[in-house]
Amino acid sequence: MSIPALRWLDPPAGPAIELLDQTRLPAREEIVTCADVPALIEAIRRLAVRGAPLLGIAGAYGVALAALRGDDVRAAAADLAAARPTAVNLSWGVSRALAAWAAAGGNCAGGAGGGGPAALAEAADIAARDAAASAAMAGHGLALVPPGARILTHCNTGALVSGGEGTAFAIILAAHRAGRLAQLWVDETRPLLQGARLTAYEARRAGLPHAVLADGAAASLMAAGAVDLVLTGADRIAADGSVANKVGTYSLAVLARHHGVPFVVAAPVSTVDLDAPDGAAIPVEQRPATEVITLGGQPIAPDGTDAYNPAFDVTPPSLVTAIVTERGVIQPVTAGNVRVLGGATLLAAPPDAVSDVER
Amino acid sequence: MSIPALRWLDPPAGPAIELLDQTRLPAREEIVTCADVPALIEAIRRLAVRGAPLLGIAGAYGVALAALRGDDVRAAAADLAAARPTAVNLSWGVSRALAAWAAAGGNCAGGAGGGGPAALAEAADIAARDAAASAAMAGHGLALVPPGARILTHCNTGALVSGGEGTAFAIILAAHRAGRLAQLWVDETRPLLQGARLTAYEARRAGLPHAVLADGAAASLMAAGAVDLVLTGADRIAADGSVANKVGTYSLAVLARHHGVPFVVAAPVSTVDLDAPDGAAIPVEQRPATEVITLGGQPIAPDGTDAYNPAFDVTPPSLVTAIVTERGVIQPVTAGNVRVLGGATLLAAPPDAVSDVER
Repeated sequence: MSIPALRWLDPPAGPAIELLDQTRLPAREEIVTCADVPALIEAIRRLAVRGAPLLGIAGAYGVALAALRGDDVRAAAADLAAARPTAVNLSWGVSRALAAWAAAGGNCAGGAGGGGPAALAEAADIAARDAAASAAMAGHGLALVPPGARILTHCNTGALVSGGEGTAFAIILAAHRAGRLAQLWVDETRPLLQGARLTAYEARRAGLPHAVLADGAAASLMAAGAVDLVLTGADRIAADGSVANKVGTYSLAVLARHHGVPFVVAAPVSTVDLDAPDGAAIPVEQRPATEVITLGGQPIAPDGTDAYNPAFDVTPPSLVTAIVTERGVIQPVTAGNVRVLGGATLLAAPPDAVSDVER
Repeated sequence: MSIPALRWLDPPAGPAIELLDQTRLPAREEIVTCADVPALIEAIRRLAVRGAPLLGIAGAYGVALAALRGDDVRAAAADLAAARPTAVNLSWGVSRALAAWAAAGGNCAGGAGGGGPAALAEAADIAARDAAASAAMAGHGLALVPPGARILTHCNTGALVSGGEGTAFAIILAAHRAGRLAQLWVDETRPLLQGARLTAYEARRAGLPHAVLADGAAASLMAAGAVDLVLTGADRIAADGSVANKVGTYSLAVLARHHGVPFVVAAPVSTVDLDAPDGAAIPVEQRPATEVITLGGQPIAPDGTDAYNPAFDVTPPSLVTAIVTERGVIQPVTAGNVRVLGGATLLAAPPDAVSDVER
């Protein structure tokens, strides 16, 4: 991306976090500057910054911002982690930066000591590791993409959500560079249209052959034999391999199974939450009805109409062909394989166990 | 409806056809007056008037309008029938009115004789029969609705598409009056949002408990056990029972099967096309990309983005639990049952054969 999704500003311009306001894309490339944690939380809540990996990075930088400003770091961290409930990466990034801050002598009262710079270094490290994870996912995932692939994707999983080229979108870019991408089908992804607005924007910049479709049209594309692979990201993966992702993902998984199309999820291991035993343990954020019954401020349903508006849905592991992580591919998706590979950073699984799964 | 979807105007105000412009709902209740067939065709193409049964009525009135104006009736009829390719009712209504016109002495040169009034009487008869068919479908379909039903519907199938209370929506209204409707789930139905704009408008007027959802959220509703019945209309039904309907319908049928939810279609027998042996024989209208990449004139994807935008999809009979017609219920959906019941008006099947199927 010529304009990064997130950028840290040192003094004298900062300390602050610059965000590309994703609610304005593709019409306008607007920068939002968050000089304190409440501003960052507001940006997270209104989805100016979004996407599981980027939320982890943003959360970590938010802790650094609080520490360097001399704010109450633990309170800021708690508020940040709670800004959105489903993506585990957000609380993971916050926890990582908070731990670095505390280890460097930070304390509750805001006397930063070495805590602020340590939290900042940790945030930068998370961003760099995410970029490396993108590249690794692209490499592992490419093996699952056949020549001449027509790939259907949902929501937005590229550089706008990542320190690198993203999750599912990084694999799509790798397939394009390898000459294997015949067509990218972009689900528009209602209600917030991340596919039409953001993925189409990224696909156009990358020169990919692509077309947008209404989410309801994916089934007929599959019935026509025009989809070889469904490839999405994830916001949280439970210990049994259940995948929480943008609403509509589970619909695609059921449709893919019905049509014999592989359904593959790409996510860094920071997305895996071993504390959630299964899909039922993942909280699904319910968002306001206005997202469904208005569009761009225009009403599209009668005033006051109720809406069912879950931000995410949960796909059971039985419908997931494979999960691509930066450490390898989980296939088949079983609790045992998730624990070995997805939980590697938590469990310090030896590299040979990872290789076992990857084969 | 306090404002009818379609109204015939006699002289001196007419001859003309008044339409409630469905592209303006729910924001505005605007009337469009079509004083000639080209104006009517434009209204049909831009979906100011839409819905399979209403298109049949509109087509028949269009033939009457041409005849009473002294236009070339056969040419007008051919143009009308071709205005939209998928809904068979349109060409059926046109053919019926044209036959009535010809039988009454109409000829190509526009010398109407008794042809004009005969075509007009036929159009009025089609509208009256459609109202009766709505009532009959409501009666037959009610037997398929369990107490406390949570019904999911797609697109718009009420009084806006009918001479009466509609197709699927007539059954929903009957269920409400019978105290059996606990909740109506309204798929917003992208790209043109007929669910959010029109079905929510009709549900609100009728006082139904209802909520709108993004089409991609239907799967998670079903997974949560919150849907007891999926109920839709149809634009064309092939001889084998394949159902062409608004894009997204097939998606719901696959999801319903996966979750063990009945999937029921309601349509008058004029929707059955025995000349189409199966789903592959039904032409599916591809509509402009602008419907997907803009909304209310606002771009929602980068300028020039391609889109896959079929107006309809086709559900195979194996996924359809039952088809409700004004003559009874087709269940199971087999070619034999479709022929006996759905083709009754064409084949003049005896009433006892109809009753056999209905049981």
